[in-house]
Amino acid sequence: MALHIALDAMGGDRGPEEMVSGAVMAACGSDLEISLVGDQDRLGSILATHNSSSSRIHLVHASQVVGMEESPFDAIRKKKDSSIMKAFALHKEGRVDAVVSAGNSGATLAAALKLLGRLEHVSRPGIAGIFPTLKGPVVMMDVGANVDCRPEHLFQFGIMAAAFSQVLFGLDRPRVGLLSIGEEGGKGNVLVKKSHELFQQSSLNYIGNVEGRDTFQGDVDVMVCDGFVGNVCLKLSEGLAEAVMGMLGEEISKSFKAKLGYLLAKDAFVSFKKRVDYAEYGGAPLLGIRGNGIICHGRSSAVAIKNAIRVASEMARNKVNDRILELFSLDHLLMQQVDTPLLDTAVSGVTT
Amino acid sequence: MALHIALDAMGGDRGPEEMVSGAVMAACGSDLEISLVGDQDRLGSILATHNSSSSRIHLVHASQVVGMEESPFDAIRKKKDSSIMKAFALHKEGRVDAVVSAGNSGATLAAALKLLGRLEHVSRPGIAGIFPTLKGPVVMMDVGANVDCRPEHLFQFGIMAAAFSQVLFGLDRPRVGLLSIGEEGGKGNVLVKKSHELFQQSSLNYIGNVEGRDTFQGDVDVMVCDGFVGNVCLKLSEGLAEAVMGMLGEEISKSFKAKLGYLLAKDAFVSFKKRVDYAEYGGAPLLGIRGNGIICHGRSSAVAIKNAIRVASEMARNKVNDRILELFSLDHLLMQQVDTPLLDTAVSGVTT
Repeated sequence: MALHIALDAMGGDRGPEEMVSGAVMAACGSDLEISLVGDQDRLGSILATHNSSSSRIHLVHASQVVGMEESPFDAIRKKKDSSIMKAFALHKEGRVDAVVSAGNSGATLAAALKLLGRLEHVSRPGIAGIFPTLKGPVVMMDVGANVDCRPEHLFQFGIMAAAFSQVLFGLDRPRVGLLSIGEEGGKGNVLVKKSHELFQQSSLNYIGNVEGRDTFQGDVDVMVCDGFVGNVCLKLSEGLAEAVMGMLGEEISKSFKAKLGYLLAKDAFVSFKKRVDYAEYGGAPLLGIRGNGIICHGRSSAVAIKNAIRVASEMARNKVNDRILELFSLDHLLMQQVDTPLLDTAVSGVTT
Repeated sequence: MALHIALDAMGGDRGPEEMVSGAVMAACGSDLEISLVGDQDRLGSILATHNSSSSRIHLVHASQVVGMEESPFDAIRKKKDSSIMKAFALHKEGRVDAVVSAGNSGATLAAALKLLGRLEHVSRPGIAGIFPTLKGPVVMMDVGANVDCRPEHLFQFGIMAAAFSQVLFGLDRPRVGLLSIGEEGGKGNVLVKKSHELFQQSSLNYIGNVEGRDTFQGDVDVMVCDGFVGNVCLKLSEGLAEAVMGMLGEEISKSFKAKLGYLLAKDAFVSFKKRVDYAEYGGAPLLGIRGNGIICHGRSSAVAIKNAIRVASEMARNKVNDRILELFSLDHLLMQQVDTPLLDTAVSGVTT
């Protein structure tokens, strides 16, 4: 049977038009069923402007919308008929196999947690970021859901991101690294040092500490960090890439010769932009919930949405959660051990 | 009287030749006195290859060298006659006004702490990183000296980096931001939230939380973070800039037309590289010690060393430490308040 994806069609900064375009593109190139969740009348009229008569795109009404700046917890408490809550409700009822949203990411996470709940063994579901590198993509987890973490949380992020990497990128034994500030195991903060000990004992293909400069070299498949560090990295990378292109553009615009050169080299710039475009993977998978979810960038284009729908369907088709549970079971003894909170040991290691 | 800078001439990955070249360049364009500290015979013969007959370059013998991978604490305990220890000993004796080293940065920090000690009010000296942006430079502190911090440490980093920014970049009221994962004061991890409360009460020109994507926009002059996050940012930026140029280069090399275009635009690329080159500021100032120090990148070129010597001399000439003490005195009531350790409150806020 064809997979069915729910799209929060009211989310994102670019409005429902962009969401509907993304859904139409996704339906067109696949056999997926897609439910657009949101204001049925508005979505219906946008859909009518497309020349798509696909019977695989459905409309599901939701009377409310969660704003980008709303408090996630207020949003899920007070707006029970929002497009994001409705999308996850469809998933809970088994009517769809995955949810994609470019809306308020905190509310998306909160809705997933409330309606689907956590996967067995998982203390903290998190968000995995997919970064382009000189070789293949690298998965970084967590990139924002959990800002204060304990070692066992980082260990679980490693397991979940490795399972995702296996399923999505077909890697048999993804190389898992712990993001730190020196390659030796003794380097890092207390959280990283304690986490390193757990990873060393695990059955993951753990390659030790990796540094920020390794992120884009492609020599590691999974980078583990807490959600504060991961989110800073995500936004710094975005900002730096934009600034680099901005500064280069300023320099090029200073001379006619350079502008001419740019025109000649333009195809290369376009290929480059495509290569580093976050839209290629569409969004960031939400891992550790009893279901499949993708959180997209607020600025997502239709292409990003199309790709996010593809990734969401691959997560469902290849049963990423079963793979996560398999990896957890390989380390079940270690998992029992870390059921004892490590916070106290971690904190006692903080020196003044 | 002319200022006198000690250069650890044995430090750095490129060998003493590069260090001596940097010193010759620095002496040539200024009235600075420079002491090259290290193997006197070797440095003497390198210096002889330069056509510089400057009487302002001196040789100070040190019989030992600290390797890049040595443990800082072992190094300062066991190698008392290393070039880095000798350089700081000269500073302690008042024979030089500042120290520049491209050697083992942990050992540089440890030597400074052991021989010069901490500045009054400073709990944790740290390292400030200087990043190029679309507008002016931004100072990020700490970028690696302190991986586990308390709110009062972050507050002190803010004061020290603001003083540096005043003195070096002539900013009257540098805009100080706290690196976090959302602009609202309520966003961030426990450390950032507690630090935010301190900054809000301070007399600094505190603009609130800033995000990684703001780093390169030039809308903030000082970014405060713990040394783990700062070091990750520093290395991620280096890695990303290299990867961006690498990927762009690969795309350009794929077609003859693009290669021709690149040749025409080459001047723009060169100006761009100069603009983002870490060598422009030479290195990272060590702030919070009773003296002036610059820690340079191990890969520092002669130009980077020359610039680091210039920055070190400006720190000494403009008495950055007096400015730090002035800023501390403006917030002395707040400083007394934070003398009570905030770690316990911070930790109790960590939820599971």
